[in-house]
Amino acid sequence: MRDFLDLGALPRAEVLELLALARRLQERPEPAALAGRILGLLFFNPSLRTLASMQAAMARLGGQSFVITPGSGSWQLETRAGAVMAGAAAEHIREAIPVLESYCDALGVRAFAEGRDLAADLAERGFTAIADLCHKPLINLESAMNHPCQALADWKTIDELGVPRQAKFVLAWVNHPRALPLAVPAAALTMAAQRGMQVVVLRPPGFAMPAPLLQRAGALAAAAGGSVTETDDRAAALAGAQVLYAKEWGSTAHYGDAEADTRLRAALGDWMVRDSCFATTAPDCRLLHCLPVRRNVAVADEVLDGPRSAVRQEAANRLYAQMAVLHRLLATR
Amino acid sequence: MRDFLDLGALPRAEVLELLALARRLQERPEPAALAGRILGLLFFNPSLRTLASMQAAMARLGGQSFVITPGSGSWQLETRAGAVMAGAAAEHIREAIPVLESYCDALGVRAFAEGRDLAADLAERGFTAIADLCHKPLINLESAMNHPCQALADWKTIDELGVPRQAKFVLAWVNHPRALPLAVPAAALTMAAQRGMQVVVLRPPGFAMPAPLLQRAGALAAAAGGSVTETDDRAAALAGAQVLYAKEWGSTAHYGDAEADTRLRAALGDWMVRDSCFATTAPDCRLLHCLPVRRNVAVADEVLDGPRSAVRQEAANRLYAQMAVLHRLLATR
Amino acid sequence: MRDFLDLGALPRAEVLELLALARRLQERPEPAALAGRILGLLFFNPSLRTLASMQAAMARLGGQSFVITPGSGSWQLETRAGAVMAGAAAEHIREAIPVLESYCDALGVRAFAEGRDLAADLAERGFTAIADLCHKPLINLESAMNHPCQALADWKTIDELGVPRQAKFVLAWVNHPRALPLAVPAAALTMAAQRGMQVVVLRPPGFAMPAPLLQRAGALAAAAGGSVTETDDRAAALAGAQVLYAKEWGSTAHYGDAEADTRLRAALGDWMVRDSCFATTAPDCRLLHCLPVRRNVAVADEVLDGPRSAVRQEAANRLYAQMAVLHRLLATR
Repeated sequence: MRDFLDLGALPRAEVLELLALARRLQERPEPAALAGRILGLLFFNPSLRTLASMQAAMARLGGQSFVITPGSGSWQLETRAGAVMAGAAAEHIREAIPVLESYCDALGVRAFAEGRDLAADLAERGFTAIADLCHKPLINLESAMNHPCQALADWKTIDELGVPRQAKFVLAWVNHPRALPLAVPAAALTMAAQRGMQVVVLRPPGFAMPAPLLQRAGALAAAAGGSVTETDDRAAALAGAQVLYAKEWGSTAHYGDAEADTRLRAALGDWMVRDSCFATTAPDCRLLHCLPVRRNVAVADEVLDGPRSAVRQEAANRLYAQMAVLHRLLATR
Repeated sequence: MRDFLDLGALPRAEVLELLALARRLQERPEPAALAGRILGLLFFNPSLRTLASMQAAMARLGGQSFVITPGSGSWQLETRAGAVMAGAAAEHIREAIPVLESYCDALGVRAFAEGRDLAADLAERGFTAIADLCHKPLINLESAMNHPCQALADWKTIDELGVPRQAKFVLAWVNHPRALPLAVPAAALTMAAQRGMQVVVLRPPGFAMPAPLLQRAGALAAAAGGSVTETDDRAAALAGAQVLYAKEWGSTAHYGDAEADTRLRAALGDWMVRDSCFATTAPDCRLLHCLPVRRNVAVADEVLDGPRSAVRQEAANRLYAQMAVLHRLLATR
Repeated sequence: MRDFLDLGALPRAEVLELLALARRLQERPEPAALAGRILGLLFFNPSLRTLASMQAAMARLGGQSFVITPGSGSWQLETRAGAVMAGAAAEHIREAIPVLESYCDALGVRAFAEGRDLAADLAERGFTAIADLCHKPLINLESAMNHPCQALADWKTIDELGVPRQAKFVLAWVNHPRALPLAVPAAALTMAAQRGMQVVVLRPPGFAMPAPLLQRAGALAAAAGGSVTETDDRAAALAGAQVLYAKEWGSTAHYGDAEADTRLRAALGDWMVRDSCFATTAPDCRLLHCLPVRRNVAVADEVLDGPRSAVRQEAANRLYAQMAVLHRLLATR
């Protein structure tokens, strides 16, 4: 493993090894494994869990980190090839990425979707432009359509919850004040498919997962003994579910059109996870959510504060998942 | 000691032990005492000394830190129970605190007073909401009505200055362009009382310390052989003082009313510490101030740059005080 | 060496020793040389390379850092002596600097030119006010007229490129949307002179280097067997050049007058480095630039992406140059 960009691109066996390593590092710390190693962290977008847990993961393994935040303490970075840089951005990623990687042993980058052109975002045009410039191990801290650190932590959490491999996993759209990127739903869909689960994407009309994501997940699921379907039928989707993975995302039918998106979601206020959503699920069905979550908009207090919520455990697993990734990328070099 | 939330709640003997530990760590460093330990730092409000000295304290003991600043690099956090989160805050402290504590061994939090409702701030409603969510050792980096790290450093400084236990300690209100919180004056009042000093709160009409703070300080002083009084008589207060602890705070008679507060303080421009304030103090009376200080508004250059000022030593002691706290919380676990 | 404020003030032999140390630390890491040491970093202005590489340099040597950014996470700092602080700044550097240095073993400070009064900036009035307050080793991370960390990395890079000592070094003005400070051109001029090169400052009318900088560079060059001249004749300047050091700076004839500066540079759009600039240079002439660089405004893509560019190597050398500086300042104390 040279980089950590896309969980779905790893052979399933390699994911299982990463999960085993995460469990091992959780139980038997290796406080000197990355002594002297440096992780550079470049955040084009805000963060809480990733910002804290990546630094903590390096520290737990004996390494150190530095954080660069374009637009806050550092200037804005230009990403467009061939740009005449007479505007706000003072530096191009063609300089910034090679320079930053020269100061560290691995680079983590967060660069959200632009949210205007679905094809461009599906092609990961922004993150790929960065990745192409980086020759040190690179970690995707959330790109337009991926969040592999989250997906690995999710898988670990589902394992810990004792969820059978072929159980029903419902990726359930929930409401939010505005359109959010597809990164986490795409990563969760891929992860659950790769794990071999019976994956159901439950979302209202206008919020269908893009076909390429469904196709890829379908192929991964088929190879692992699972399946992927999509529906807007809440009753059918939730019946028998063992994992309810709630997530907000923007309208894909009106991608980049904030006004149309807002109009659609205005009528979807009841797409919020409540206790009543679990009436027909498996009795031990648990709630996952990558966080941050809008309480009483996306998920009701009663669920987040109740016994079905595994969101804190899921977030805590970010640390161990990332320790495994960093260990794999840096400890054996 | 499980947390470090309130110096006044610690038995006096335990404070003396912390002070002895601070002196020991200052003289005989323990660069590996917290090797592998991680301190999470959550700043809802700006900081210079606390931000730098907490990181330095961890580093001096061999540990590491990470810093989260809601609203800058991380999103805003909701604190109200039951909120329907359709506004600016993307995440609730009910998620953020448990998640952040899962990435570290101890959490330090700064959350200033809301400054609207005196009773709510006296009840530490905001900080308590956070503390209730945290199960790892928690350090108060300044709450609505407390700043125990500052108070411990103050006590250490007063000891170093050779101030007798029962000397006269004057907590003197000074002017500032706007209303500041009561956290530091409350903590200084409590600390001096707990140390057993003859404490005088000197403040103009409209800026009386809230009764519950005075009562608590009075009880602590009585138990330690000291006393607490309050006055607006500058001549009487300053006569014989051995410590002049200058501090700005907002009108308590008009708590949360910025307009009334501004009107009051417009007539109080001469409530600034000048050399002339020391005319009738003890000859070796020293100036303390927690910093930041508005020069020539709160304290004149002549005092800050003269021999009476101990404010730099006081600030430097933040490092050793906090090393002691971190050592006590984390080294023996 | 007690501080690192000005490369030109160091004896040439001491610079050569620093360069040798930088090469040694690059080849033979010393991961424990600064174990337990703390570097404080105070940034009054934005940064990418310096912010990342100073933290990385400490980490590579086993130490740690903390970062303070007035105006972001910390409040604004007042620098004027005698100020009545009733404005935006909450703290004076007369407190902030001594306090911050008390938390670390060395302090690095970035404080750009004010850009209003050329004489004040040439006198380094701002940085000197800070330096006078600091009694721990101090590192200049870019002041009004200096950037010694950059200059040391530049020298190292020129050595690595195999450029003969007395080769022709052209400091070439290039365009930019607005007036930038003189710190880097002043430091590069001084460095190349001190190295003993044939230094030519190439700039359009209105952008002459201030006389004191030219005089100082001339004296350093003379002592090292080189020379310093200035011209606005691009053909003459570029002929035979072995290093083309491109840099943007503001009009010195209209220092602090943004309108006049903008008017001047509106006609200077062709002062951009293109491949054609190398038509008459030495065949192996290389491009240096401190970065950040405005692509296709200051330097064309074709040059930055072509074989003449050494800007990434130059930026990478910041790490090793600063490791040498930190090692010299802290390892032997």
